Amino acid sequence: MKKIIIILLLIQGSNQFIQAQDALSNKYDLMPWPKEITEYSSQFLIDENLTVSINSEKSERVQKGAIRFLRRLANRTGVFLNEGFPVYNEKGSINLIYDTISKLDLRTDESYLLEISASKIDITAKSDIGILRGLETLLQLTQHNTRNYYFPSVSINDAPRFVWRGLMIDVSRHFQPIAVIKRNLEAMASVKINVFHWHLTDDQGFRIESKVYPKLQELASDGLYYTQNQIKDVVAFADNLGIRVIPEIDVPGHASAILTAYPELGSKENYNYSIERFAGVFHPTLNPSKEITYTFLENLFTEITPLFPDQYFHIGGDENEGKHWDQNQEIAKFKDKHKLKNNHELQTYFNIRLEKILKKLGKKLMGWDEILTPNMPTTAVIHSWRGENEGVANGGSLIEAAKKGYQTVLSNGYYIDRMLSVEHHYSVDPIGDIKLNKEELSKVLGGEATMWSELVTPQTIDSRIWPRTAAIAERFWSTKDVKDVDNMRKRLSKISYQLEELGLTHIKNRDVILRSISHNQNINSIQDLAKICEPLKIYARNKDGIEYKTFSSFNLFADACSADAEDAIVFNRKVSNFLKVQNRTNTAHVLSYLKKWANNYTKFAKLDKNPKLNSLEELSKNLSIACNVLQNSIENTAVSKSDLLKLQNAIATLKLPVADTEVVIVNALENLANYCKTNYKN
Amino acid sequence: MKKIIIILLLIQGSNQFIQAQDALSNKYDLMPWPKEITEYSSQFLIDENLTVSINSEKSERVQKGAIRFLRRLANRTGVFLNEGFPVYNEKGSINLIYDTISKLDLRTDESYLLEISASKIDITAKSDIGILRGLETLLQLTQHNTRNYYFPSVSINDAPRFVWRGLMIDVSRHFQPIAVIKRNLEAMASVKINVFHWHLTDDQGFRIESKVYPKLQELASDGLYYTQNQIKDVVAFADNLGIRVIPEIDVPGHASAILTAYPELGSKENYNYSIERFAGVFHPTLNPSKEITYTFLENLFTEITPLFPDQYFHIGGDENEGKHWDQNQEIAKFKDKHKLKNNHELQTYFNIRLEKILKKLGKKLMGWDEILTPNMPTTAVIHSWRGENEGVANGGSLIEAAKKGYQTVLSNGYYIDRMLSVEHHYSVDPIGDIKLNKEELSKVLGGEATMWSELVTPQTIDSRIWPRTAAIAERFWSTKDVKDVDNMRKRLSKISYQLEELGLTHIKNRDVILRSISHNQNINSIQDLAKICEPLKIYARNKDGIEYKTFSSFNLFADACSADAEDAIVFNRKVSNFLKVQNRTNTAHVLSYLKKWANNYTKFAKLDKNPKLNSLEELSKNLSIACNVLQNSIENTAVSKSDLLKLQNAIATLKLPVADTEVVIVNALENLANYCKTNYKN
Repeated sequence: MKKIIIILLLIQGSNQFIQAQDALSNKYDLMPWPKEITEYSSQFLIDENLTVSINSEKSERVQKGAIRFLRRLANRTGVFLNEGFPVYNEKGSINLIYDTISKLDLRTDESYLLEISASKIDITAKSDIGILRGLETLLQLTQHNTRNYYFPSVSINDAPRFVWRGLMIDVSRHFQPIAVIKRNLEAMASVKINVFHWHLTDDQGFRIESKVYPKLQELASDGLYYTQNQIKDVVAFADNLGIRVIPEIDVPGHASAILTAYPELGSKENYNYSIERFAGVFHPTLNPSKEITYTFLENLFTEITPLFPDQYFHIGGDENEGKHWDQNQEIAKFKDKHKLKNNHELQTYFNIRLEKILKKLGKKLMGWDEILTPNMPTTAVIHSWRGENEGVANGGSLIEAAKKGYQTVLSNGYYIDRMLSVEHHYSVDPIGDIKLNKEELSKVLGGEATMWSELVTPQTIDSRIWPRTAAIAERFWSTKDVKDVDNMRKRLSKISYQLEELGLTHIKNRDVILRSISHNQNINSIQDLAKICEPLKIYARNKDGIEYKTFSSFNLFADACSADAEDAIVFNRKVSNFLKVQNRTNTAHVLSYLKKWANNYTKFAKLDKNPKLNSLEELSKNLSIACNVLQNSIENTAVSKSDLLKLQNAIATLKLPVADTEVVIVNALENLANYCKTNYKN
Repeated sequence: MKKIIIILLLIQGSNQFIQAQDALSNKYDLMPWPKEITEYSSQFLIDENLTVSINSEKSERVQKGAIRFLRRLANRTGVFLNEGFPVYNEKGSINLIYDTISKLDLRTDESYLLEISASKIDITAKSDIGILRGLETLLQLTQHNTRNYYFPSVSINDAPRFVWRGLMIDVSRHFQPIAVIKRNLEAMASVKINVFHWHLTDDQGFRIESKVYPKLQELASDGLYYTQNQIKDVVAFADNLGIRVIPEIDVPGHASAILTAYPELGSKENYNYSIERFAGVFHPTLNPSKEITYTFLENLFTEITPLFPDQYFHIGGDENEGKHWDQNQEIAKFKDKHKLKNNHELQTYFNIRLEKILKKLGKKLMGWDEILTPNMPTTAVIHSWRGENEGVANGGSLIEAAKKGYQTVLSNGYYIDRMLSVEHHYSVDPIGDIKLNKEELSKVLGGEATMWSELVTPQTIDSRIWPRTAAIAERFWSTKDVKDVDNMRKRLSKISYQLEELGLTHIKNRDVILRSISHNQNINSIQDLAKICEPLKIYARNKDGIEYKTFSSFNLFADACSADAEDAIVFNRKVSNFLKVQNRTNTAHVLSYLKKWANNYTKFAKLDKNPKLNSLEELSKNLSIACNVLQNSIENTAVSKSDLLKLQNAIATLKLPVADTEVVIVNALENLANYCKTNYKN
């Protein structure tokens, strides 16, 4: 049966095949979308007799993965399974078959074949990691009617486009407890992300215990750091999910924390190093002219690298502006002696020393794209991050690195802390239309979403990572032609709530913050505001990096808001439809939102006010004024001059930032206002 | 000023004093209510200049406590503090002064004096623990007007009634990850609970790593256990919060997990011991006639006790029905040889051997009240738990133990897993009206709420512990005469949402479950149902202990419901007011609820159904029918015979359990129905 359909599809040509895939992507909410999916007509019923049988050599990953699968399936369906644990080498309902237990590295085979018939389900894979990927796909396939849950009968043949599909979490600017890391690892695995890049040190804190240099955590972490046992626990947890862990110790810049503990390694004499409380780029930098710097790093890396079995080790290397280097006579002399023309060459010298240390320890050096300098050995991995914001071409260093023979990973375009839309990130392709030869292509390992944490806390981090990172994960896994934004959004909304099932807090913590802001009053009116406001983008929220300190409150209205404000996305589309065609449906859609918001201030005004709520007063009031006028105008196809003035004034106010957010329906409101002005009698 | 007021109050007599306290307890939402509070007329403004100064020897507890205080205050108020860390020996806004850094034991002085004036705040205490208690009180005092947050100027002189104020968490029936334990420890500290009793082993799992007997975690935990490092981390975390940790290794019964790992210690030969998946009382029991049993326990205790610095060690000792003992010839011979007349005497023999082992290890044995047998040495601590449910007088063993010279702790009446109302638990006083002499009184150490975990998971446990345990904490801390239920409920509702601020999930996870049940549809109609339903009480939800397995789903409607259903509490009171006086206000209150519920089925019917939602169909439908009839009847002061019949049928259905819950407004609806029948024309 299956073969026939595939052959048919092949005969009918690839265009037909793509259309078939499109139809299925409207039907099934898989993310990332698989390479090939073929549909049959039957269903596999999920009932209490469902069992999982492992039919290969025992793998801790598959054993634990199967248990997680069973628990999640039971929770989603409410079916009371008789058997809560996998069995071995029996005829199960779900049979897992794999050839090898894989080491986690760039060669790991993650492909799998998932075949669902009415009577059984087989997942076959070359490696146990492929089985994990297949189980996630199977869970996403769960369907129901009014009486039963079932899996649709499909055959899925899947494999990733890129081998490096990562998420970086910065735990320095705001420390993230183990529980945060673990739940995010589970979320990552659910969308087939396979690299966790752990940004462990920065100016704001050194977050990993050193027994050799204990002052690092004692003086430079505020007590917020991971013990080595906790690190091992997380690495093992990630390994069981098929996720590699890449640690980053950021040097020689971003070193305020290290130098707080060991000032003798600093480039500036008699400088009062201290843990940084603000955000930004700071001057404290390790001194590359002192031998003790290399001794320190060698000892530290020797201590830390065994905790991380992965071959890659990230040394940062970014944003060193060299100011303290320029102010140091010894460093000037050192440059002369070693014929280093400028700070770039000095940093290359430093990087090459580190590369040798790491090589001795069996590790490959990875660094942000500033390390891409003429003399850098091609064994280094270039992590491309700079773009327009930094005055260079977006993702340019990725292609440059690949062409020069470096392995490379893209993060430019995936800076999720900038609070841009999912559409924006989804539209960035690591390679795009650039032609690369096979050798060059093989150097582009993939990409990483980066969660810098200046503005996120354990309470809000999930809402900054998810659900957008699921769409980025699809960009890294699925073929390049999977790029329909509307279809992605449809699937993403389902994936988002399934991430909540998994324990992520991105949905539920919005109301927690709103309850706290209102001191537990009825939050209905401020929920509606949060659904049309987004936190200020790029880095506008934290002006010059000094508006917020690391210990400031991030339990504010802006923290309850997120990118892709849910009502705004729908409303903006409805308005655009209405402006094209003013039929009854389009008009009704727009009016229903306008009515809700016209009423906002009536509800908001009833709240017992406090200093935090006060900042929303003007927003609520002007929103209601604007929507009230628009509603009346559309209903009466008329708008008075005085109403127009009121409307324009209200919109002008709504254009201003409010409580560190922007009102992202304001353009749609303005377009409606213009329409009213032009088309209705004034 | 202060002195004058106190003197005035004293002159005016204690009755006057109590009235003053009552007035203040309407004004301030403190819990537990303090011993003495005096109010002045000024306020301390909370602004960015607020600092905390520690003016005594450095205590890690106070240092960390002050940081937690500053973070929580910033999050609650949104005030951007300039200084995020405590300073030392400066004139701070808030000054912490204590005499000693305390060891945590029964002699720890937890008293404190909190004095707030317009210009500064002093917390003085004998010990650093007293400072922690005072900081929690101060946080609970946070007030606001529209423009500012402030602390009211009061003086509070506070100390606990009982030295042992505990919460037990069973992590065997359902394992609870470290993050769950830590957030609950923080919640405990916020209401001044000072004992965490950690029920680490039971038939369903052995949850602590043993290096001496590694099969315990390897074969008897499903991989869900705490490493010794994690245990140490939790104990240190608790110590910083001023909370003692009492481990429990439950023996000789409740031993299925231990015997799964080491069957040779069992009382029954050739028995296939395995981890228990159901709930209940099971037969697997350690063999007290074998010397290897004592060797095992001595080795295990020797390994485990150093992880827990507290002097008390809980050995369980409950619910051994002796069935396997009776079936064992060797044990029968052993009893004969040692002249042990029955299994009680055999268990006492066993307990006395354990008492000696523990004594050698510097520990005091504590056990459930079954250990209170004639020969038990009075060095043992009796944990009173049995009551009516077990066919004995409620709390009787507590008084018996105290009179016989045993230290004793009460849990009967505080079984929060039974899902009874907060009013029920709040009304249980450990001593009540029983007269005890000073010596006997000193033996009653206090009480413990017990969170048995047959029916709770990490997702739901907070909603089973909180907020009810805050009221129990007040019972243990405050004087006996603090017992007004309405006032407690008022304060508790504020404390409950402050627990959410602290990271507890008892409020937010309700909607998570409802979103999951509905697969992310509009949950409005099922939220309304969850606010009038409570999980079946006592142990009716898990009939005979076999309805649910440990790995069954607890992501169901009943898990979204909790004790003290919020709408039901209000509605039942409104109905009772209406039945007394049918004035406009009382009528309007009742009608507003009836209207909402009359409409429930219209909303519910719109949902795309699935097997989980189906179980709520009859509930929604009959609720709407009943409320519709009642609404019309009250509005028209008339009810037809046919409507009465419809109403009575609907109420009859609502009386039945639905999806493992009971509809707790059903009596109020019935009372309204009877009122309509009697007073309106039919």
